[in-house]
Amino acid sequence: MKMKLFLPGPVSVRSEVLKQFEKPVIGHRTKEASEIQKSIIINMQKIFGTKEDILVSTSSGTGLMEGAIRSCTRKRALICALGSFGELWQKLGIENGIETDILRTEPGEATDPNKLEEVLKKKDYDFVGITHNETSSGILNNLKELKPIIEKYSEIIWAIDTVSSAGGTPIDQDKYGIDISITSSQKCLGLVPGLSFASFSTKAVEKARTIENRGHYLDLLLLYNYSREHNFQYPSTPAISNMVAAEYQLNYIVNEEGLENRFKRHLTMSNYFKDWANKNFEVFGNKKYLSPTITCVKNTKNLNFEKLSDEFSKRGIVISNGYGSMADKTFRVGHMGDTTLGDMKEFTKIFDEILKNI
Amino acid sequence: MKMKLFLPGPVSVRSEVLKQFEKPVIGHRTKEASEIQKSIIINMQKIFGTKEDILVSTSSGTGLMEGAIRSCTRKRALICALGSFGELWQKLGIENGIETDILRTEPGEATDPNKLEEVLKKKDYDFVGITHNETSSGILNNLKELKPIIEKYSEIIWAIDTVSSAGGTPIDQDKYGIDISITSSQKCLGLVPGLSFASFSTKAVEKARTIENRGHYLDLLLLYNYSREHNFQYPSTPAISNMVAAEYQLNYIVNEEGLENRFKRHLTMSNYFKDWANKNFEVFGNKKYLSPTITCVKNTKNLNFEKLSDEFSKRGIVISNGYGSMADKTFRVGHMGDTTLGDMKEFTKIFDEILKNI
Repeated sequence: MKMKLFLPGPVSVRSEVLKQFEKPVIGHRTKEASEIQKSIIINMQKIFGTKEDILVSTSSGTGLMEGAIRSCTRKRALICALGSFGELWQKLGIENGIETDILRTEPGEATDPNKLEEVLKKKDYDFVGITHNETSSGILNNLKELKPIIEKYSEIIWAIDTVSSAGGTPIDQDKYGIDISITSSQKCLGLVPGLSFASFSTKAVEKARTIENRGHYLDLLLLYNYSREHNFQYPSTPAISNMVAAEYQLNYIVNEEGLENRFKRHLTMSNYFKDWANKNFEVFGNKKYLSPTITCVKNTKNLNFEKLSDEFSKRGIVISNGYGSMADKTFRVGHMGDTTLGDMKEFTKIFDEILKNI
Repeated sequence: MKMKLFLPGPVSVRSEVLKQFEKPVIGHRTKEASEIQKSIIINMQKIFGTKEDILVSTSSGTGLMEGAIRSCTRKRALICALGSFGELWQKLGIENGIETDILRTEPGEATDPNKLEEVLKKKDYDFVGITHNETSSGILNNLKELKPIIEKYSEIIWAIDTVSSAGGTPIDQDKYGIDISITSSQKCLGLVPGLSFASFSTKAVEKARTIENRGHYLDLLLLYNYSREHNFQYPSTPAISNMVAAEYQLNYIVNEEGLENRFKRHLTMSNYFKDWANKNFEVFGNKKYLSPTITCVKNTKNLNFEKLSDEFSKRGIVISNGYGSMADKTFRVGHMGDTTLGDMKEFTKIFDEILKNI
């Protein structure tokens, strides 16, 4: 059976995009490869809302999150976490010998600007990593609220994890003065997993130049230097077929569907599903900061998730249980990528059916 | 025009393999994902000639080479280089703060066991990385000659870079007592780039457990621990569609074509092309150690490579210039993956035509 994914990533990918993989493999040192990279840059700049440079990595988003904190922290890093993926970012720092603190929020809450200000006053941070959209709790941080605090510290490199938001909601990197936005292919961009993308501001480049022990494969400065010096190509063989598919899909996102339409579609799907979820269960988290790309639902009916998941599975649908400590208390539904309002209506119809019989 | 790649990687991929990407994306936390990983393990064990565990990384081979040296060196590392990719491995160590020495050979020569013995006596090495097949010079190291030297040092973790040999020639990891064999998807395995594979011996696992600062994304021990504890799944979202294609192709390699036939085919193509090259140019390197997967040809006719490459390009063929310092003096032809003797005959026929008119 063809399974439809309502996961917080990976997402179902349009068949036109999958068909791109049928094209014969091209060499990664060809002019064609350079052109693909250039096209990806232009469209990712629009998606991130930046004029800064764009890097592509053959890795998951975790790889670039590790690369960012390692390449750009000289003194001390702070992670503003909304849940599991913020916890992971702190770990990525510590595992590379970087002194990394974490500012946690209560589950379901966004980062409090006042608390951020308090923390930044205490120690000499030069890297701040913020989870934009937390896949484990369905919360979207408000970058506008955090900007006035972070911009007081001119030395800080500000990086954001937009793995589950870029392409589904505006990022507006340059408007907020963000230096590095990181995302993955398999979420709102509607691609298969295997690639990740990062913007890399001039300020971040300058900073990385002053830092030693940045490693190699995930070193953002190496990717930047090499691609500038080698006509937008990369030091190691990149997942070139995945890049061909990315070029095709990013062009669709920006020039066919259009970003405004895409963001509106995500919001419409989100509102529709959250209404349904509040009628039947309860949406987890502070209403002011709910994510437009994923909904974390409190399992108020105490359904056995495995049984629920099996019922969906029989009907060709995959959903996700809660993440980490919320595994049993919540479940998660992704409405991102190229999923449509029609898909969501079909999904809730099936959910209604299951609820009648479970 | 559909271009046929005679590169030392990436290689042209069979259309049946590319078609695997058309399958709907599956979740990486599903039972299906676990089954795919298990199947990849079984077939990669046969390709590497080992009973040890197999790890899959969403990265190029460079990523796992960095992971290996960082995860398994506590004291000092030595790289036995045959050319550019050995130089790179040393750099990967140094860029991670690891004291890494290099034993170079004259271009076109294999590693001399006597010289290796001399070097190992001098310092307290606990990691030795050896290039098995050097893509830049077309030389294959003789692991049998090196085994008696390395096995004298029981503490050493022995890793080999089989990026351009695994799947094209026997590796026999367990026969030689190798701990880590590393390869990439886009060479002899006949897959698109984006994945790399490593074996990871029990001895290497034990060693990595004693080492701090291994990082995260490329940490072999993390991949090992996580996949053992989570039913053969991975900590970060892997390139799951690429893994579906890998499962299909590795099954073809091991169970349809068969490894012996595959190795024989590579040797036949290599002998055929080297004969042709010696008649028309001259094969670079010591005859005793020539690679069965790639031929480095001395440009004895002083052809302008760009012009030569353009002529091939017009006929739908991509070849590669020399690498690094040999860029102008040599060119390279890959005969690996699912290329056939028929392809090589067609290739030399076209080359003959070009030579008449250039």
